[in-house]
Amino acid sequence: MKKIVLPVITFAAVAGVVTCIGTAFGEANHDAKTIFVEKIPPGYRDWRLISVAHEEGNLNSFAAVLGNDIAIKAYREGKLPFPDGAIIAALHYSHTPSEENNKVFGRSQSFVPGAPTNIQFMVKDSKKYAATGGWGFAHFKDGKPGDEALMNTCFPCHDQAKGSDLVFTRYAP
Amino acid sequence: MKKIVLPVITFAAVAGVVTCIGTAFGEANHDAKTIFVEKIPPGYRDWRLISVAHEEGNLNSFAAVLGNDIAIKAYREGKLPFPDGAIIAALHYSHTPSEENNKVFGRSQSFVPGAPTNIQFMVKDSKKYAATGGWGFAHFKDGKPGDEALMNTCFPCHDQAKGSDLVFTRYAP
Repeated sequence: MKKIVLPVITFAAVAGVVTCIGTAFGEANHDAKTIFVEKIPPGYRDWRLISVAHEEGNLNSFAAVLGNDIAIKAYREGKLPFPDGAIIAALHYSHTPSEENNKVFGRSQSFVPGAPTNIQFMVKDSKKYAATGGWGFAHFKDGKPGDEALMNTCFPCHDQAKGSDLVFTRYAP
Repeated sequence: MKKIVLPVITFAAVAGVVTCIGTAFGEANHDAKTIFVEKIPPGYRDWRLISVAHEEGNLNSFAAVLGNDIAIKAYREGKLPFPDGAIIAALHYSHTPSEENNKVFGRSQSFVPGAPTNIQFMVKDSKKYAATGGWGFAHFKDGKPGDEALMNTCFPCHDQAKGSDLVFTRYAP
């Protein structure tokens, strides 16, 4: 059966590190275990900043992208592919107007993170995740991992960023 | 002479931590040295994330807000006022469309940090900066501090956030 890739599938794919939505990629032809990462990597909220991201449209998403030490080192040294052990985290929030700030501004122009929407990770393990470019993908909403259908949408989208080892986010100076 | 506070003055004030623009606050009536912080605090790019921010309009600004250990601890413990030694950094970039991401999305909706525009700091020292609520303000563009007229705009705007010790940015979970 022909694989149907709808634009909507990829809306969230570059919101931060990785966002996997929809089910149309459910037929993606790869052999990896589709629930890649079942536990939230500890300490991620203390990791250093890689960059920030904003998606308009249905996603309405605001992201902070953080990296563990291995990921940050690779980014700063411009090393590709990322070494095993690198983990990139995207903390997603709703992109929310700040009434408080706008009051100071005197007009509507200020946006801040609203409620957290999900936390996503890309975990590099070239052996374990060989079938998906060496990356395991993770999505947690309210602490619970995304289901198989959702997780099947990650790799086909990220696979479009082959030139940067499947990672969309660039390091912000 | 009556102090004229134009809305434009405060456009940038809450873009991240502190943005000081314009000169209409030049007559602000305080006694502090107006060039507060003359050197960029070392190691700030390794500090932990407080939040992200986005300003539309003339500012077109994208910010990552980071804190040193003292600031992060105070945020996490909900301690106000911030203790001496707390430093909050706002790394500002232009809010820039990502052609690469939009190509994957199939439509224009993705924004990433473009060129860095400035780095700003709030440094807590209740004695040194007693005349400005205990905070010293800093603005660096291409490594150079903002001039006196610019720096005079910071405190009057931040002084509107008395309920949160003159800090606009909230901690993102």
